[in-house]
Amino acid sequence: MRRVKVSKGIEKYLEERKILVDKALKEFMPEPSGLAGDVIRAMNYTLFAGGKRIRPVLCIAGSEAVGGSADDVVPVACAIELIHAYSLIHDDLPVMDNDDFRRGKPTNHKVFGEAVALLAGDSLLTLAFNLMASYGLDKNGEKKALLRVIDLIASAAGYKGMVGGQMVDISYEGKDPDPTVVEYIHRHKTGALIAASVTAGTILAGGNEEEVKSINRYGQQIGLAFQIADDILNIEGDRNVMGKGIGSDKVRGKITYPSVFGISESKNIQTRLIDHAIESLNRFDERAEPLRDLARYIIKRKG
Amino acid sequence: MRRVKVSKGIEKYLEERKILVDKALKEFMPEPSGLAGDVIRAMNYTLFAGGKRIRPVLCIAGSEAVGGSADDVVPVACAIELIHAYSLIHDDLPVMDNDDFRRGKPTNHKVFGEAVALLAGDSLLTLAFNLMASYGLDKNGEKKALLRVIDLIASAAGYKGMVGGQMVDISYEGKDPDPTVVEYIHRHKTGALIAASVTAGTILAGGNEEEVKSINRYGQQIGLAFQIADDILNIEGDRNVMGKGIGSDKVRGKITYPSVFGISESKNIQTRLIDHAIESLNRFDERAEPLRDLARYIIKRKG
Repeated sequence: MRRVKVSKGIEKYLEERKILVDKALKEFMPEPSGLAGDVIRAMNYTLFAGGKRIRPVLCIAGSEAVGGSADDVVPVACAIELIHAYSLIHDDLPVMDNDDFRRGKPTNHKVFGEAVALLAGDSLLTLAFNLMASYGLDKNGEKKALLRVIDLIASAAGYKGMVGGQMVDISYEGKDPDPTVVEYIHRHKTGALIAASVTAGTILAGGNEEEVKSINRYGQQIGLAFQIADDILNIEGDRNVMGKGIGSDKVRGKITYPSVFGISESKNIQTRLIDHAIESLNRFDERAEPLRDLARYIIKRKG
Repeated sequence: MRRVKVSKGIEKYLEERKILVDKALKEFMPEPSGLAGDVIRAMNYTLFAGGKRIRPVLCIAGSEAVGGSADDVVPVACAIELIHAYSLIHDDLPVMDNDDFRRGKPTNHKVFGEAVALLAGDSLLTLAFNLMASYGLDKNGEKKALLRVIDLIASAAGYKGMVGGQMVDISYEGKDPDPTVVEYIHRHKTGALIAASVTAGTILAGGNEEEVKSINRYGQQIGLAFQIADDILNIEGDRNVMGKGIGSDKVRGKITYPSVFGISESKNIQTRLIDHAIESLNRFDERAEPLRDLARYIIKRKG
C-alpha cells in the first residue's frame, strides 16, 4: 500500500477558509427570536457544532482554481453547509440512523426533540435556497450561473443524489455486501454533494465548460473516497476525535467498502480514486494546488 | 352573518387549470426505477393522492390577472405543489400530527414507513427548487424574476413562513387559546405559501411593483381565511368529503380560530378577510375575476 503524503500547507488553507465560512454563516443565520425561536435555536445548534466545513472550502477552492475569489462564492458555500447540516439532523433521527451523538455532542433531536429536529432540518434545507436566490438577486449579472448552481445543488441533494443514497443505505441494512450497491450508496449519499460543492465554485467563478467538467470529475472521485475514508474511520478511528460511536456501521449491518472489499483493498481503492482525482486536474496550474492537497487530505484525516 | 355567493364558473375554472397542473406534474415527475425507486414511489403517492391544486391554480390566476398565460408559470406552480405535498408528508408523521389518513387514503408513512416518508418529503422539497431553477435556465430572459420567485417561495416555506407556523402550532398544543398566537400560526403555516403562490404568478407574468404588492395583500388575506375555513371544516365538515378525522383539532388541543373566537365570530372574520382580499384587487380588470371568485370559493368549499 503506497503512502499518500499530505502537504502541511493544506491545514493552514483549510483553517483560513473555514474562518471565512464560519464568519459568513454567523452573519447569515438569524438570532433565535419570536414565537418560532426554538426552530432557529435548533438550526444553529447543529450548524455551529464544530464541522470542518469541507464542502464550503471545496466550493471556495473550486473557484480559486480558475482565478475566482472566495468572496464571490461564500454565500453559495454557506448554503451547501446548510444542506449538509440538514442532512445530518435528519440522518440522526430515530427513524433513520438513530444516533445519539455527533461530533461529541448530543444529536439535534436529543436536545430539541424529534419534532423540532425534523423542522430544523426542513428549515435549513429551505434556507439554503433562500440564500442562493437572494445572493443571485443582489449580484449584478451572473444570474444564469446562479440558476445553474441552484439546479446542480438541488440535483445533488435530492433523490438523484443524497436522498437517493440515503434511501438505498437504509433499505440495504443487514443485506449481503454488494459492490454495485455500496458504490451507488457512497456516490449518491456523500459523493454527489461534494462534487456539486467544488463544481459550483468553478461555475460561479466563470470556469469554461472543459474546466467545469474536469472539476466535476475530480469532485466525483474525492466524494467517493471521502465516504470510504469515513467507513474506515468507523472501524479504525479514535472515538475522541470522531465524537461518535466506533463500529456502529457493523452493529447496524451497514454495507460499507470494508464490508465488501476488506480494509486493505478499500485503502487501495481510496488511493486510486485520489490519484485519478488529481489527474483530472492536469489542465490546471498552481492555483489548483489546494484542490490537489485537499484530495490527499480527505483520505488522511483523523475525524 | 352575510352569505357569500360563489360563481358557478369558478368550479369550471378550477377544474380546467387543475387538469393543466396534473398533466405537467405527471410529465415532471420521474417513474419509480433504480435502487432508490421506493422514494420516488412515495413522492408520487402523496403528490397524486387527489389534491385540489389550489396553490398552483392561484399561481396561474395570479399570472392571468396581469395578462400572463398559464403555460408561463406552470413549472413554478408545480414546484409549489411539490412543496405543499412535502409539508403534508412531514406534518402527518407520528412525531408531528400523527395522522393515519389524508384525503381518505392512508398517509405516506402508513404505506411506506416513516424513514421513506421522511426522505420522500425531503426529496419533494428539494425537487421543487430543481424544477424552478432548471425552468429559469431554459427560459430566455426572466432569470431575475425566477430568482426572485425562488427567494419568495423559499421564504414562505422556511422558518419565516410554513416551518415557523408549524413549529408554533405543535408547541402550543394544549395551551390556552390566544388570538395573537392563532393568527401567527395560521398566517405562517398556511397563509405564507398561499400568498407566495399567487404573488409568484404575478411576478413571473411581469406585473409591476404596485400590482405585485396588491396581489400579495390579496394572498395574505385569502391564506388566513383558507386556514380558518379548515378549522371550521374540522368541526362542521363531512368526514366523507374531508377524508380525515373530524374533531381531531379539539382532541389534540390545537389552537384554532373557533377555539379562540367561537364558530360564529370565526365565520365573520373569514367573510371580512375575503371582502378585504377582493378590495385589494380594485386596480385589476376582469382578468382578475377568477381571483375574486377563488377568494369566495375558499371559504365555501366542503373539503
